[in-house]
Amino acid sequence: MGKVVLVGAGPGDPELITLKGIKYLQGADVIIYDKLVPRELINYAKPSCIVRYLISDDMEIDLLRKYASEYKLVVRLKNGDPYVFGRGGNICYELSKDGIECEIVPGVSSVNSVPAYSGIPLTFSGISDMITVVSGVTQGGKLFDFQKIPDYGTLVVLMGSKRMEEISKGLMIRRDPSEEVAIIERGTYPDQKVHITSLKELHKFNLTSPSMLVVGKVVRLRELLWKLS
Amino acid sequence: MGKVVLVGAGPGDPELITLKGIKYLQGADVIIYDKLVPRELINYAKPSCIVRYLISDDMEIDLLRKYASEYKLVVRLKNGDPYVFGRGGNICYELSKDGIECEIVPGVSSVNSVPAYSGIPLTFSGISDMITVVSGVTQGGKLFDFQKIPDYGTLVVLMGSKRMEEISKGLMIRRDPSEEVAIIERGTYPDQKVHITSLKELHKFNLTSPSMLVVGKVVRLRELLWKLS
Repeated sequence: MGKVVLVGAGPGDPELITLKGIKYLQGADVIIYDKLVPRELINYAKPSCIVRYLISDDMEIDLLRKYASEYKLVVRLKNGDPYVFGRGGNICYELSKDGIECEIVPGVSSVNSVPAYSGIPLTFSGISDMITVVSGVTQGGKLFDFQKIPDYGTLVVLMGSKRMEEISKGLMIRRDPSEEVAIIERGTYPDQKVHITSLKELHKFNLTSPSMLVVGKVVRLRELLWKLS
Repeated sequence: MGKVVLVGAGPGDPELITLKGIKYLQGADVIIYDKLVPRELINYAKPSCIVRYLISDDMEIDLLRKYASEYKLVVRLKNGDPYVFGRGGNICYELSKDGIECEIVPGVSSVNSVPAYSGIPLTFSGISDMITVVSGVTQGGKLFDFQKIPDYGTLVVLMGSKRMEEISKGLMIRRDPSEEVAIIERGTYPDQKVHITSLKELHKFNLTSPSMLVVGKVVRLRELLWKLS
């Protein structure tokens, strides 16, 4: 029986992979990746490594199980960090039920790095001292229950490109419609785009790629801290 | 005028530094670090690099300003991620007022990696779909206003070794006394220690080193997902 390692690939910039992640990529007999993972990281694979592109999450656990029964070291490259909205816990749980050893290599999460590449610190003395993170749409396509979000501090919403109208409506259940929002598309990639708006105007945006919302007073720090745009 | 780069050093395990972080350490003319940063990372410094240990945060900005006026590339190594409770935003803001260029290299935050090294995913389908992060004691020694925390989802509390009694009392304002808590000391270091308890028993623990609390149902996943203890 082989071992499965879930490696956090970081948010997009291939230089945000960790040293530990690189070592596992170099030693892997099998690497499984998907569209959210920076392609450049595949270059660390040794020549004999089997590299597989994962089309659908539905096949993920079966595929890991299959390869772990045939090869020693199976690496699943995951966008950001595997234990932050990455289904990593669920995957490890399922594999360990079958007696397959599973290890996690934490990664640079999109939660902190994507705002940083947009000039937005999640906390700032006198402006925000609390961070809350949710996924706009949960596994299985259900909208997050926005009644649960706090009305205080910085709020990060991970999302795809769709259902902006429902999400913006949901956010206004607990947050003030005048609050600043940053919409960050393709965060940390060279073609990253940032739009600054307010919660009440948010529904007007049509996104085409996976994105993130940052809600709260820290958004206005971008004006002061962002110089590369 | 030189440039200041705040590099996220990761949580403690020296292999959780990013490739981008290593490149900046290798090119740095000056590296400033403190007791929260893994010492091994200093080995990346080139022979001519000036390496300075920072005793007190009070001197941090003055020191960066001084070195930036004399050297080209000044790296400030910061525990975890510089923009997550790391004062990174405030430092950048102060330096940019003086016309000093400041860049952020995001790091693996303690928030996700320390629980991961303890077998605790911050989210898990059907168990938790929201993460909130606070610092138990804020800059200047004030206790966090625990009225603000949500009573739902996973809660991460960053803290020193002190004031456990006040913090545990504060947490029970909004969270149920029977909730599971993981206390993680020296997270991701070889001598990491994890204690599992409940909120109502938390005050009994005397800590000796910087630590983190994880509150919520995800804590019980450790039993299933932790194999290296």
